[in-house]
Amino acid sequence: MDDDDLRRGRPTNHKVYGEALAILAGDALNTLPFELLSRETKDAALAIALIRELAAATGPEGMIGGQVLDTCHPVEARQEQCRFVAAASLPKLQQIHRMKTGALIRCACRMGAITALGAQPPAETLAAIDTYGRAIGLAFQIVDDILDVTATEEQMGKKTNKDSEKGKLTYPSLVGLEKSRAYLAEQVRVADEMTRQLGPNAMLLSQLAHDLANRSN
Amino acid sequence: MDDDDLRRGRPTNHKVYGEALAILAGDALNTLPFELLSRETKDAALAIALIRELAAATGPEGMIGGQVLDTCHPVEARQEQCRFVAAASLPKLQQIHRMKTGALIRCACRMGAITALGAQPPAETLAAIDTYGRAIGLAFQIVDDILDVTATEEQMGKKTNKDSEKGKLTYPSLVGLEKSRAYLAEQVRVADEMTRQLGPNAMLLSQLAHDLANRSN
Repeated sequence: MDDDDLRRGRPTNHKVYGEALAILAGDALNTLPFELLSRETKDAALAIALIRELAAATGPEGMIGGQVLDTCHPVEARQEQCRFVAAASLPKLQQIHRMKTGALIRCACRMGAITALGAQPPAETLAAIDTYGRAIGLAFQIVDDILDVTATEEQMGKKTNKDSEKGKLTYPSLVGLEKSRAYLAEQVRVADEMTRQLGPNAMLLSQLAHDLANRSN
Repeated sequence: MDDDDLRRGRPTNHKVYGEALAILAGDALNTLPFELLSRETKDAALAIALIRELAAATGPEGMIGGQVLDTCHPVEARQEQCRFVAAASLPKLQQIHRMKTGALIRCACRMGAITALGAQPPAETLAAIDTYGRAIGLAFQIVDDILDVTATEEQMGKKTNKDSEKGKLTYPSLVGLEKSRAYLAEQVRVADEMTRQLGPNAMLLSQLAHDLANRSN
């Protein structure tokens, strides 16, 4: 949808196979997990709990809805087709991130906990992993926004500076680089706090949060 | 994907809202039923049985896979991007129809039976409704192909003759109009036979098959 030529240094799907097949590949990958979860999970209650998480995180209230808001936000689109979306603002940016990438990352954390602990994990544990997931989801996006401004195209394997060129909402464009980095540090702090609550088994989750915050591509 | 301006006499989604939002509307409608089924169906075993049917019918082995084959079949696409798809033939056309529209119509029939009779309906009943679903799915598509040749644009509320213009596989283009009508009659006969097996409660299903075969738009 950003019509980029490259992703991770390789030509994008629609450039190689055409738009129709690229759309259908996305549709197929959107449907396949529901098939796998319903066919391969032996415990029906567990399968339903997992499917409910995934459907809510990817559907109109999650990733897809977030992409709609994001699509409607660039200046040129807002004027043409998306008059119903309110003006640019930090709360709007946060809502887009929470839905577009955050919901799926958070869902991956929750589904892991549900798979390990059963269809109804202890509320406190699920709340901690949920807060952790929100924090690293937001961290991921802030880093993405920062790298779009500071990294080279070679480093990223995709075009940089495209968000600002398109007038997209980003953390650096709204609050500047310094405040963006402070927001990022705050998310890592929250993630660390939650992994401490989750106990020594969650050490790798803490490492993941730090690696994610320090990634350079 | 056929880039039509009209559907049922009204402007198509991508003409009104742009391609990105049209794609996302499709993605959302593809995900929403899994959310509804997993959230609203009280019996977990029933919910899983329904989700399994829907995911298989819409996923890469069903509707989406059929659309891929269909996309790869027009002469111009085959030469450019889809060298892996074999040449035009009646078995290939039947496979496309079975997957692209047939799987979803058949799935609607099976899901109705499962909802009415429980997660594991009697094998004979499910087999009869399955065969019925296949027959009306195929009938629907044959009628669609015939109307593309014989109906006016005004009648259909969309562009006609577009399949043949694009070099798409259709029943009339492969076997002629007369044989296409004979195939159609055979599907209605099969649907009638299955509804007789299903008993007097299935009278409406027989009526549906006849209405579908005789539709003029």
